[in-house]
Amino acid sequence: MPSLNGSEPEFADIRRAADRLDGLAVRTPLLESPLLNERLGGRLLVKAEPLQRTGSFKFRGAYNCLQAMLETDPPKAVIAYSSGNHAQGVAAAAGLAGVAATIVMPSDAPALKRANTAAYGARVVLYDRANEDREAIAEALRRETGATLIRPYDDPNIIAGQGTVGLEIAQQCREAGIRPDAVLVPCGGGGLVSGTALALHGEWPDLPIHAVEPDGFDDTRRSLIEGIRVRNAAMTGSICDALLSPMPGELTFAINARELAGGIAVSDDDVRGAMRAAVENFKLTIEPGGAVAVAAVLSGHLDCRGRTVVVVASGGNVDLAAFAAELAPATP
Amino acid sequence: MPSLNGSEPEFADIRRAADRLDGLAVRTPLLESPLLNERLGGRLLVKAEPLQRTGSFKFRGAYNCLQAMLETDPPKAVIAYSSGNHAQGVAAAAGLAGVAATIVMPSDAPALKRANTAAYGARVVLYDRANEDREAIAEALRRETGATLIRPYDDPNIIAGQGTVGLEIAQQCREAGIRPDAVLVPCGGGGLVSGTALALHGEWPDLPIHAVEPDGFDDTRRSLIEGIRVRNAAMTGSICDALLSPMPGELTFAINARELAGGIAVSDDDVRGAMRAAVENFKLTIEPGGAVAVAAVLSGHLDCRGRTVVVVASGGNVDLAAFAAELAPATP
Repeated sequence: MPSLNGSEPEFADIRRAADRLDGLAVRTPLLESPLLNERLGGRLLVKAEPLQRTGSFKFRGAYNCLQAMLETDPPKAVIAYSSGNHAQGVAAAAGLAGVAATIVMPSDAPALKRANTAAYGARVVLYDRANEDREAIAEALRRETGATLIRPYDDPNIIAGQGTVGLEIAQQCREAGIRPDAVLVPCGGGGLVSGTALALHGEWPDLPIHAVEPDGFDDTRRSLIEGIRVRNAAMTGSICDALLSPMPGELTFAINARELAGGIAVSDDDVRGAMRAAVENFKLTIEPGGAVAVAAVLSGHLDCRGRTVVVVASGGNVDLAAFAAELAPATP
Repeated sequence: MPSLNGSEPEFADIRRAADRLDGLAVRTPLLESPLLNERLGGRLLVKAEPLQRTGSFKFRGAYNCLQAMLETDPPKAVIAYSSGNHAQGVAAAAGLAGVAATIVMPSDAPALKRANTAAYGARVVLYDRANEDREAIAEALRRETGATLIRPYDDPNIIAGQGTVGLEIAQQCREAGIRPDAVLVPCGGGGLVSGTALALHGEWPDLPIHAVEPDGFDDTRRSLIEGIRVRNAAMTGSICDALLSPMPGELTFAINARELAGGIAVSDDDVRGAMRAAVENFKLTIEPGGAVAVAAVLSGHLDCRGRTVVVVASGGNVDLAAFAAELAPATP
């Protein structure tokens, strides 16, 4: 097993992840719209992870985690459970490494996510999100096949891999002479925001970083307030399919409780508005779950007047018909 | 007047344009999708100019042309005619330079293009595309106001500015160790493809470069075959609003006749397919006229099996409702 297993990743682990990903992951651009900035009265920068390999940031953590395994204790095969982005990340990473992958996915995952996961060469096993336990299914498959589990977020090598998003934001801001006043990051299990916070606090220890979640799935926001991990009431009921995890991870929450300034929850309508604004202003396809941080700014949950705010757009894997429907003007 | 006026730009002029644009224009990424490559059996790279300042490549030429004027004979004001992308390019460039701008636009231009041109601070004058002559209207306004015309394509500084797209493609390919086998570029009046060809042939003199146009507006394709500039029969009738120019430019055609391997024409349905594929595979919003080169490859007009093909996606300024309609699955 990778030596990091169970412990928090350090800044050096994120640098090591960046080295592993060099030449394979895309150094995604920070997008900006002068016209939108003028309307907002501030400066909004969007880290465009829909342009990442596999269409979301998840390739970073999956590839880093698999490479760490290959360097220490090569798995005979890998398995993962995921609503679709970690699925594609693991499938693509395993494909590059020539390792067999089995992915457990909810049957209501977007068709594009299921098709691409299979296209990267993985075996896809579907389950019922409302009634079945994906971790139990993955555990049974793991025992049956001898495959090694690649967790979606609660793993130090996953967190370190996702943290390369923060490393790049810091580098790109430095190159452009920008000092951000706040950073907002979409949050499901918390891998992306915890890794990004560790990386950014390596550069700017006092930078406020917020987790953004969908209404009803704001487990990290509430856990940060209560000081202990709390669960979401439901498992379905938001268009943000990528962010419907049941509760914060143990490791991710330990980091987030220390590193984050707080959490923000946005409505599905806020998300639809952000998806439309992203097309108009950034020409970028963002999937619902990937758009929550953009939504937090555009809906006024975080005021960016007179400030420079970086938001992560975390993924863009949305079915065409669903995307077209979200873009169409709201009909009463 | 800029010293280049009337003569062909040289490679050094494109480098000079790049220097002027440094820090203001976006060095847009070359996007790639491993899954799409696998399906195509080749390598497709998309130069993503929808991510450019103002949402299209047109900012490059407009800014370069205005700066060249400011360095030699500063205009008291500028005027331009454009279906919307050159409009925004000139408006944004003039806004940055603090120069007043008047833009003559067709009344059927996308609302986003009209609104953004005004938002950059320009005065917008509308005309009827089918029945009025935009050049005559611009000429009357020029005489009335004493403003200097910034032509949409038939100007050496415009061509040199657009040529920075080619300069970046060459740099980005070199950095990635890629030697393209062909490059496809959307073509209206021919400024982008002529400048891009001059830049790319500075690096690879034998690289085949093709102009891509909409069916019915393939004046450059036919002119290249006939060896003289020929006109399009109609002024309206394609969804590619950005590419409905009447005939090739004098200067651009002189360059294109020498530099291009030929022209390709694609249908509106090819374009719709390319817009959908761009969302699914590249998470990129491409407007119809900006998608013709992508369409040429995806519709099989140019075979990319076993080859590396670079296509320019030239702009992404499309109205949300129209975009949503193009993305929705075709209904019989």
